[in-house]
Amino acid sequence: MRVSQFFLSTLREAPAEAEVVSHQLMLRAGLIKQLTRGVYTWMPLGLRVLRKVEAVVREEMNAAGAIELSMPAVQPAELWRESGRWEQYGPELLRIKDRHQRDYCFGPTHEEVVSDIVRREVKSYRQLPLNLYQIQAKFRDEIRPRFGVMRAREFVMKDAYSFHADKASLDKTYREMVDCYSRIFTRLGLKFRAVAADTGTIGGTGSHEFHVLADSGEDAIAWCPDSDYAANVELAEAIEPFKPRSTPAQGMKKVPTPGKTTCEAVSEFLGFPIEKSVKSIVVAANDSLYLLLIRGDHTLNEIKTSKIRFLSKFRFATEDEIKNAFRSRPGYIGPVGISSMIPIIVDRTVAKMSDFVCGANEDGHHLTGVNFGRDIKEPEHVFDIRNVVAGDASPDGKGRLEILRGIEVGHVFQLRAKYSREMNLAFLDESGKSQIMEMGCYGIGITRIVAAAIEQNHDGRGIIFPRALAPFELALTPIGMGKSARVRETAERLYRELAAAGVDVLLDDRDERPGVMFADMELIGIPHRAVVGERGLKNGQVEYQGRRDERAESVPLQDAINYLKSKICG
Amino acid sequence: MRVSQFFLSTLREAPAEAEVVSHQLMLRAGLIKQLTRGVYTWMPLGLRVLRKVEAVVREEMNAAGAIELSMPAVQPAELWRESGRWEQYGPELLRIKDRHQRDYCFGPTHEEVVSDIVRREVKSYRQLPLNLYQIQAKFRDEIRPRFGVMRAREFVMKDAYSFHADKASLDKTYREMVDCYSRIFTRLGLKFRAVAADTGTIGGTGSHEFHVLADSGEDAIAWCPDSDYAANVELAEAIEPFKPRSTPAQGMKKVPTPGKTTCEAVSEFLGFPIEKSVKSIVVAANDSLYLLLIRGDHTLNEIKTSKIRFLSKFRFATEDEIKNAFRSRPGYIGPVGISSMIPIIVDRTVAKMSDFVCGANEDGHHLTGVNFGRDIKEPEHVFDIRNVVAGDASPDGKGRLEILRGIEVGHVFQLRAKYSREMNLAFLDESGKSQIMEMGCYGIGITRIVAAAIEQNHDGRGIIFPRALAPFELALTPIGMGKSARVRETAERLYRELAAAGVDVLLDDRDERPGVMFADMELIGIPHRAVVGERGLKNGQVEYQGRRDERAESVPLQDAINYLKSKICG
Repeated sequence: MRVSQFFLSTLREAPAEAEVVSHQLMLRAGLIKQLTRGVYTWMPLGLRVLRKVEAVVREEMNAAGAIELSMPAVQPAELWRESGRWEQYGPELLRIKDRHQRDYCFGPTHEEVVSDIVRREVKSYRQLPLNLYQIQAKFRDEIRPRFGVMRAREFVMKDAYSFHADKASLDKTYREMVDCYSRIFTRLGLKFRAVAADTGTIGGTGSHEFHVLADSGEDAIAWCPDSDYAANVELAEAIEPFKPRSTPAQGMKKVPTPGKTTCEAVSEFLGFPIEKSVKSIVVAANDSLYLLLIRGDHTLNEIKTSKIRFLSKFRFATEDEIKNAFRSRPGYIGPVGISSMIPIIVDRTVAKMSDFVCGANEDGHHLTGVNFGRDIKEPEHVFDIRNVVAGDASPDGKGRLEILRGIEVGHVFQLRAKYSREMNLAFLDESGKSQIMEMGCYGIGITRIVAAAIEQNHDGRGIIFPRALAPFELALTPIGMGKSARVRETAERLYRELAAAGVDVLLDDRDERPGVMFADMELIGIPHRAVVGERGLKNGQVEYQGRRDERAESVPLQDAINYLKSKICG
Repeated sequence: MRVSQFFLSTLREAPAEAEVVSHQLMLRAGLIKQLTRGVYTWMPLGLRVLRKVEAVVREEMNAAGAIELSMPAVQPAELWRESGRWEQYGPELLRIKDRHQRDYCFGPTHEEVVSDIVRREVKSYRQLPLNLYQIQAKFRDEIRPRFGVMRAREFVMKDAYSFHADKASLDKTYREMVDCYSRIFTRLGLKFRAVAADTGTIGGTGSHEFHVLADSGEDAIAWCPDSDYAANVELAEAIEPFKPRSTPAQGMKKVPTPGKTTCEAVSEFLGFPIEKSVKSIVVAANDSLYLLLIRGDHTLNEIKTSKIRFLSKFRFATEDEIKNAFRSRPGYIGPVGISSMIPIIVDRTVAKMSDFVCGANEDGHHLTGVNFGRDIKEPEHVFDIRNVVAGDASPDGKGRLEILRGIEVGHVFQLRAKYSREMNLAFLDESGKSQIMEMGCYGIGITRIVAAAIEQNHDGRGIIFPRALAPFELALTPIGMGKSARVRETAERLYRELAAAGVDVLLDDRDERPGVMFADMELIGIPHRAVVGERGLKNGQVEYQGRRDERAESVPLQDAINYLKSKICG
């Protein structure tokens, strides 16, 4: 491609509304253009990147035995009513009325549609398993679209849905999809982690997320450098401390802590490590109050908490509820001497603590030297209710956890019978008995991958695309093309030969100043650059520089094609 | 691809709702599946066909210098208000409100969005011309969606938009797009015509339609077998008859024609050819009535009529208006002796008639032997107001017209300044002066092409895909694969070798009865078939049959690959 025949449109400055670096660089490089809030046009340069992502995803999905189809964007409400999601799915679902006032939506996902197809097509176990996928524009009416295509309203997704005669078959395809996703992100040249994930609202059990690692990522991932363990922080297990609880060494003592209502403030005021303090949190569920205890420097994990049977629909208690039950303000409450009507839920770490500090249930006072079995009864309800932190033991027993930030680009679920039961996806098994299918679903955020790749791969000069995503592999930059016939002819010859050799080359035939051309090619992230100039040609040389290289190197003109090819494929 | 690993789903009978053959065959072959009225899923087999169409369109558009981008499906109402189409575009526009009650639509076309991009990006004549295109799902809320994907609500379109500094540049790109479209439909193996078209509601001047010829087509096309002339019947010119008007030979006579109110009935009753009768049609415009005269066997062309300056907003007169003005019922009116307040518009053909028959302005009576210049004054307002018919002289003077039915699959327009003026697409010309861009737009109905191709290419057994559209090029059908190791091994070897030779081959490894396999492969339209069976192999032979061939032929096994390749590429 020649720049003169392409539509390149770069900006020196990023528009003010762009908060994260990928959004800034995508706008500056002219990959995307906002049409309206959270809705973007993929400009010619950006579309080339998107198509490269799609091609890798499509190849690997096909290789894994999935079959591509294309479902409509507009879906009738009836199917969503059948699955129950017409009511459940809040305002993120873009609802539409047609000219006859019938209800539709712009599909944010396609479980209902694909289930409807499969229940009409598949009658026998012989037709199973089946894995259908598509690559398609979806719409989710996010309340706060932001970060460009990272959290857009209209976006492109690869969504796959598998159907099975039994759980073993689902497990097999699920594993194949996890492997397939790993191959996809590896081929795309991205640093990523597959992590165990909470299934969130989509339902079903068994789920992994794929995160591209980047400091700006919205999700925190706990992972163990010494093993394969990785999980979303929401789900990573905080295991019981190995060390047994120490014998009590102090007597319980009430101390004045005027105006100190947080563990940080109390420990600083009293001069002891925060790890010796215990935080008291009051929640309500089923008309009862519960007191949750976690270590002062830890944070409550609400998802884990809601998995405790009697707390499945908990809410935080109001200040009035707390004052009534504890006869003190929230910052001074604690487990000592409270009503036996308030069950105490103890985090695993707290259960191993001794001589700790907590609120005294008296305004302006805390207790020190508190111990289980002496000042309060031994814990009855011990659960994992906190978020893991860096340094926690890995749940697989193979080392200590680290926390990384990541951008979720893929998600695989075992939906099991969630949709197939609601929508009656029945088939006849080998014995002629009617059974309900097992189902899995597998998503990849195609447009989001481009942003995530840029978050992970950029520098002060712009984007540094991994080879598989680059809109062009090589920028060929002639200097003074308009003045020098030798430069022009050499550049044109190299352009023809490189194109013939299968290199995706962009010839910058604008005859701009070198600084302008270099800056543009660096900004848009072309991984390799060759410069043809009068000065070099006098010595029979052209210049090569990789996008991450500190400096250029000279290459004899007669070796240029082979040299460039070896660099690009390198 | 192996049938066992693909998702083939054929039906013996077409569902009752399918009216046209392409819809019936697409459902029976399992290319598409209806989700809701006018909205279809492209099943894996259909999607393969669709992708082949897309690939040809993309290659030819790129070769013609157009640049692909991808605009959003969801568009903000503001842009449509700017162009004036938010109000103009009736209920076909699928209007949407988001969670904040802001107005959007599901884009049925993208003039507004692309204009908004270009006005923000293009500032100078140096950036022009520019031709941007995309291939994308669109939605038009048709009041009567029908014929499957032929007139669907959600459909895939290739839409291109070009921008120019002057009309000469627009003309050049317009011609290039006409040529590009001709190459596309030629490569797709379709019989088609490019015809001059009325621009309809999209606005602007200068337009051609591309029609795939098929008996079931919704549009009638007039074309000349002896020249390049072709035009939509709505637009084809009926030229003035060459022969001068004959001298009157009869006297005018009033004859009773009780109950005969049509030209057909009157001519049959009186026993003369219908070509001697004149039909009288009354229309109203600007508070006046006008009498239109066309030959009895011709039909009025309303588009041509509305192009007469003073009839631009005509409507048909009511029965009461006619009775008041002519003192007789509509079936008996005519031009003789009427008020001079009613201008008479005479069709070119009628102006050359003599001794004709028309209504007598008296119930139950007609006049015969009527002549201009004697019984009524010579025509003052002679226009082309009728539809052409087969046998009419071609407007280019090179022969006689024939009428064909066609399916519109492409449309190119010169929009000129329609959108660029409304939306202020300004640029600086060479002299630094601000100018408004010229604009063209170029559409292809990607999904409709598949239906049109089937309308044109099918027989009693099913679809006969042209090579470029076929989901697979060759069906490889082993007979008794499960019983005969020789059959299985030969089929597997041929499959591998054909695939390695780049043939898009479908191996029917279902081990079904031959009749079932043959019927399926014929129904889905695979153009070539090779059969491997025990009987043939005994003689060292396989069978080949083209989809249109009457019978199979035997081919020596050792020549099979080369023979099949030559047939497929043939």
